[in-house]
Amino acid sequence: MTIQTRLIEYTHGDTTLEGYLAWDDALAGPRPAVAISHAWSGRSEFECEKARKLAELGYVGFAIDMFGKGVQGTSVEENQALIQPFLDDRAMLQARIKLAVEVLREQPEVDAGKVAAMGFCFGGLCVLDLARCGADVSGVISFHGLFYAPGNTEGTQISAKVLVLHGYDDPMATPEQMVGLATELSGAGADWQIHAYGGTLHAFTNPEANDPDFGTVYSASADQRAWQSMQNFFAEVFA
Amino acid sequence: MTIQTRLIEYTHGDTTLEGYLAWDDALAGPRPAVAISHAWSGRSEFECEKARKLAELGYVGFAIDMFGKGVQGTSVEENQALIQPFLDDRAMLQARIKLAVEVLREQPEVDAGKVAAMGFCFGGLCVLDLARCGADVSGVISFHGLFYAPGNTEGTQISAKVLVLHGYDDPMATPEQMVGLATELSGAGADWQIHAYGGTLHAFTNPEANDPDFGTVYSASADQRAWQSMQNFFAEVFA
Repeated sequence: MTIQTRLIEYTHGDTTLEGYLAWDDALAGPRPAVAISHAWSGRSEFECEKARKLAELGYVGFAIDMFGKGVQGTSVEENQALIQPFLDDRAMLQARIKLAVEVLREQPEVDAGKVAAMGFCFGGLCVLDLARCGADVSGVISFHGLFYAPGNTEGTQISAKVLVLHGYDDPMATPEQMVGLATELSGAGADWQIHAYGGTLHAFTNPEANDPDFGTVYSASADQRAWQSMQNFFAEVFA
Repeated sequence: MTIQTRLIEYTHGDTTLEGYLAWDDALAGPRPAVAISHAWSGRSEFECEKARKLAELGYVGFAIDMFGKGVQGTSVEENQALIQPFLDDRAMLQARIKLAVEVLREQPEVDAGKVAAMGFCFGGLCVLDLARCGADVSGVISFHGLFYAPGNTEGTQISAKVLVLHGYDDPMATPEQMVGLATELSGAGADWQIHAYGGTLHAFTNPEANDPDFGTVYSASADQRAWQSMQNFFAEVFA
């Protein structure tokens, strides 16, 4: 096994974006692929490492870019400012992540019929929106994602299988919002699962998260359970 | 691999009970064990098959008996009458399942330090009660279990890890009850997970369940997901 990587530049309107592709070149032929949607600080080493880990599992991993080439927030205020335009314009968000999935689908290493997406925090919202707008992907996984309904997808059937990996004490996604998401997904005909982890806060997959007052704390057990559930899910949806 | 089985008679007060043990005699030495608590019709081939499947996974499986040797309900009315005394006397329920776990723990094939429990429907309630009364077991898994709090375990810390595999449209365990269970488990300090499956009713693991009006329908996908999550859980709690 030798994990290879390359950067891929693509454009959405006037915005230049840069994703990070990882694959195992010891495998022959096209294989299932997963787009990885970043958290609110932009595409970082965190998501690139996930891409390589997915490559180790035999998939193509693609850490996508929602904000623009090289754009990264370095504070809560900067991060909030980076995601706000997407929260204000969900159609733009949806168009941008759909584009990233199409870029991934076109790569020669990718089996175009087997593409999924996963995302963290803001990226969880992005992949849920990908499903909500009826995108033709095998599945989406939200890791401690935000649940706000987009408001522009009522009546759209969700064909992607949906897995939501959720810290039950996440202050950014309350039990009430979780129940609201369940109702929304059922209404859209989705094949969905929500795995709620007790005593678990936001950002539970991020080893650097350690701010209980802000609601972001790493949990090794939840991180491992989520990663296992991710593997089970991909095994199912790519079967 | 050769799966062996034997019946084990034991008594609780004046009641004679009969459990069904399964293990793989190709494995040497004691191994982790799982008590399996039956649904509301009593110990049946359904639970005995689960015991053998657990034996195939390398565990000892023990289909316990809550009702009494040979007692099986054959109608909704009979089943309801069978479980009612347990719903009315949760301390009795708790004592009986704790006894079953101790019987299992004493078997020569069993690693007494690695015992867990799982149950279906009424049996899910039983294993949740096992955890709620602070029993020293590695973990419990409820498959489409009932959630009613027992009312006699407030202030008791839950040491067992808890996994709840739940059909979100189960009319016998509503979203409101699910949220109530989450609150209860968190209050008791439990390490808990709830996996909710969209579009899934009560009894989703039972291939014979096919009564949408009653709320009981088999789901092959939920059954498979639950079985996979069970395996992941046992791998974790018996590590």
